Amino acid sequence: MWCFLNGEWMDMADAKLAINDLGIQRGYGVFDFFRVMNNAPLFIDDHLVRLQRSASVMHLQHGYSSEEFKTIVNELIHKNQMPSSGIRITITGGYTTDSYSISQPNIIITQTPVVMQDDFSQNKAFRLITHNYVRDLPSVKSINYMMGVWLQPVVKAAGADDVLYVKNNFISELPRSNIFIITKQGMLITPNEQVLKGVTRKNILQAASSIMQVKERAVSLEELHDAEEVFISATTKRVIPVVEVDGKMTGDGKPGKRTAAIFELLLQKEKQSTGCE
Amino acid sequence: MWCFLNGEWMDMADAKLAINDLGIQRGYGVFDFFRVMNNAPLFIDDHLVRLQRSASVMHLQHGYSSEEFKTIVNELIHKNQMPSSGIRITITGGYTTDSYSISQPNIIITQTPVVMQDDFSQNKAFRLITHNYVRDLPSVKSINYMMGVWLQPVVKAAGADDVLYVKNNFISELPRSNIFIITKQGMLITPNEQVLKGVTRKNILQAASSIMQVKERAVSLEELHDAEEVFISATTKRVIPVVEVDGKMTGDGKPGKRTAAIFELLLQKEKQSTGCE
Repeated sequence: MWCFLNGEWMDMADAKLAINDLGIQRGYGVFDFFRVMNNAPLFIDDHLVRLQRSASVMHLQHGYSSEEFKTIVNELIHKNQMPSSGIRITITGGYTTDSYSISQPNIIITQTPVVMQDDFSQNKAFRLITHNYVRDLPSVKSINYMMGVWLQPVVKAAGADDVLYVKNNFISELPRSNIFIITKQGMLITPNEQVLKGVTRKNILQAASSIMQVKERAVSLEELHDAEEVFISATTKRVIPVVEVDGKMTGDGKPGKRTAAIFELLLQKEKQSTGCE
Repeated sequence: MWCFLNGEWMDMADAKLAINDLGIQRGYGVFDFFRVMNNAPLFIDDHLVRLQRSASVMHLQHGYSSEEFKTIVNELIHKNQMPSSGIRITITGGYTTDSYSISQPNIIITQTPVVMQDDFSQNKAFRLITHNYVRDLPSVKSINYMMGVWLQPVVKAAGADDVLYVKNNFISELPRSNIFIITKQGMLITPNEQVLKGVTRKNILQAASSIMQVKERAVSLEELHDAEEVFISATTKRVIPVVEVDGKMTGDGKPGKRTAAIFELLLQKEKQSTGCE
């Protein structure tokens, strides 16, 4: 599989960074990830806006414009011919001379296969546990997933599928997903603070507004437990129903009808955006 | 310069990790760093105990015993002949297949020159700013220094030398140093919670107990500002006086006499430990 590393094309197996990269030394870098559907990148403009913002907040002056990234991405898609896949653009802190300071960033662009399930009823419903945590600089998609990776054995031991971060009784996000509740009154609500603003989250808010009231605001743990339906969203997950949080059934413990409707709206939006409808 | 990477000896310039390393992908790994003085490793047992503990807490099953690490370190010192230096052992989450799960860790052992100043009066006194933060898993020496690296321009803009983390009005540590206060009553106090337990910190507490009362307990920001003397400690810094915090002079704004005495005790302890006295 072809990949792009600092201006050069190479096989992914040959793509390496020297050990003084600030990612390896201090876990410092940002990235973004978007899907490729029928050889077209999905919602790439939104992802590039977020990537450029992440890099800027993190003082990573990489010198690539979004147009340049798009040209590289298109060439990557052309070279690899992997119709259903994901592309990750990573920008690390670069080769540091003092093991602490940011340098000229390293740019890595890779493509990997992604298998999507278009039939909502076939997607596994998730059980979540909660953990008291807020990510550092949550609006930035940094490479710092230390807490999420570290919690994996805890999630597994609890027989759960993922972990929801909670602070002062308010929910925020999962390590790699946003969360939504649908109230008994039929309103769609998602936290708006201490979260990474997902592109799928944005598309859901837009699409769902045609069938229900939507709101971005703080959501307490109690509201989550009281909700009629709960689901999470992510680029590779689209919409996944949540049927249990901390061992307590959410809603009636089954994937919800409104969640299914939102899944279908999202699917439609994906198809529209790539001109496949 | 020789280094050790996953069982092989190579020049540091040739030491590289494939881009699917979990350090690069998710900032996941641990390390430790100790000095070499007259070609002897300094307090290596303490550092290896901490490294093994960090790896264990972070689920990094690397398979190297402390004795094996010591053998490699001794060979590295022998190969490089760099009498005054620092050795870093890094253990990353390994080559991940799903970009999120821990795999067989990658082990990197490098040696770099370190110049130490043995004359306390020649060491620059530090000015600090504070930042509202506690590290994730602070007792673990992870590679996650995102906040410290990110704050560097803020530190610089404030004309300061480093940043002190504070939460709920209590001080904890700097990104790479511990902090101590000496009260007007002549007691040495250092925070004992939400900190990485430094080896230099440990040596200072031991050495200073011969000349003053020492205590590990919570320290408020007010106590810091009221202190007679303030200093920080780290492997490459030994003892550095702090003369200003958030623009406010600490003590009389000059390096303190007791701080100087502790520096000398630490120097003595270093010499004793390598049999150079």
